[in-house]
Amino acid sequence: MAQQERGIRTRREVLEAAAEVFAERGYAAATISEILSRAGVTKGALYFHFASKEELLRGVLEEQFTEDDILPRSSKLQEWVDVGMALAHRLPREPLLRAGARLMTDPNLQEMFGKGPQVSWVELTHRLLVEAGERGELLPHVVPEETARFVVNAWNGVQLGSQIATRWKDLEQQVSVLFRHVLPAVAVPGMLPQIDTAPDRGERVVAEVRGLPVGV
Amino acid sequence: MAQQERGIRTRREVLEAAAEVFAERGYAAATISEILSRAGVTKGALYFHFASKEELLRGVLEEQFTEDDILPRSSKLQEWVDVGMALAHRLPREPLLRAGARLMTDPNLQEMFGKGPQVSWVELTHRLLVEAGERGELLPHVVPEETARFVVNAWNGVQLGSQIATRWKDLEQQVSVLFRHVLPAVAVPGMLPQIDTAPDRGERVVAEVRGLPVGV
Repeated sequence: MAQQERGIRTRREVLEAAAEVFAERGYAAATISEILSRAGVTKGALYFHFASKEELLRGVLEEQFTEDDILPRSSKLQEWVDVGMALAHRLPREPLLRAGARLMTDPNLQEMFGKGPQVSWVELTHRLLVEAGERGELLPHVVPEETARFVVNAWNGVQLGSQIATRWKDLEQQVSVLFRHVLPAVAVPGMLPQIDTAPDRGERVVAEVRGLPVGV
Repeated sequence: MAQQERGIRTRREVLEAAAEVFAERGYAAATISEILSRAGVTKGALYFHFASKEELLRGVLEEQFTEDDILPRSSKLQEWVDVGMALAHRLPREPLLRAGARLMTDPNLQEMFGKGPQVSWVELTHRLLVEAGERGELLPHVVPEETARFVVNAWNGVQLGSQIATRWKDLEQQVSVLFRHVLPAVAVPGMLPQIDTAPDRGERVVAEVRGLPVGV
């Protein structure tokens, strides 16, 4: 068990080092040896987890978006908001997500990004919006796929703007502004007052997820 | 007069070449000599217009956003939408704007970008929203500065997403989706049916601007 935990920690350290080096140098110019020295692990340990630079990149991209932050709510629109707010809370605090956000703007990686984490995120939020529609939470003219794609793109733009203006200090505030601006076009009026879009929503969601027993 | 026109054309050709080279190589790696050969002008002609690589960059950034596409409308919210729709129409069609959109993601240039064209755009749209508020077009809780900043950031994210997914082919469609999602949170209900957010709005605005006598 201790050995398994150590393996998980090593894998994480390698990924964080790789993400930082990719973000600083660009993927093309990054070298395994710089990642090794940054991570402070042996060559054997790195190759045990990742066979190549490309596998490292894939590992970094996979970490950019997970479904772990979603807890079931009575409103599916609230779950949809929670995904965006939790990510806004985590990104400034987690080196792997911060590096990923910088990587997203590497022209050589945009295509991979566009097919990887962005697609997973659009698919998940699309699914939540379809469920919201089935429960009567959406206005009749809403097209879930269109709304899901727009909000993921807008979230990325808000992230980029917040990164440039405040090094992400106001990201949660700005993502809260995003949802306040979009919900009236999406939710039936009766839902609006029930949906929590406060800037600290993400912090509360993440705390709740992490307070749960492991595996729930 | 012919000479003056030639000067304007040369300046434009140099700027387009510079924008392309900056976008392909990154600003740091770009050289004046590559810009010269791409533009097909003499060294003297280039230096007549731009004294340094930095001046070239400033010239490219200044072209990214102009107020030329605004025609006075009875609704200030319509003018606000028109700015975003006209830019969505022009970007895929103008090499200088296309290159600028790629430049925006150069990590070394984001700060300059964030202080240059982005700021002008936020300021202009902020002003239009304040005027819309004075005319009673806005819902009472709208904060024009917050909405202006959010929509410029969201526009950038939509642009990036459209660039990755379709090489900007669906940019006008996606920017139309943006305004349809934001207007219900911003406009008094009576204004909504009057505001034209159709995907071809930008094309019509640009045609109208260009059809006017020069100087109007």
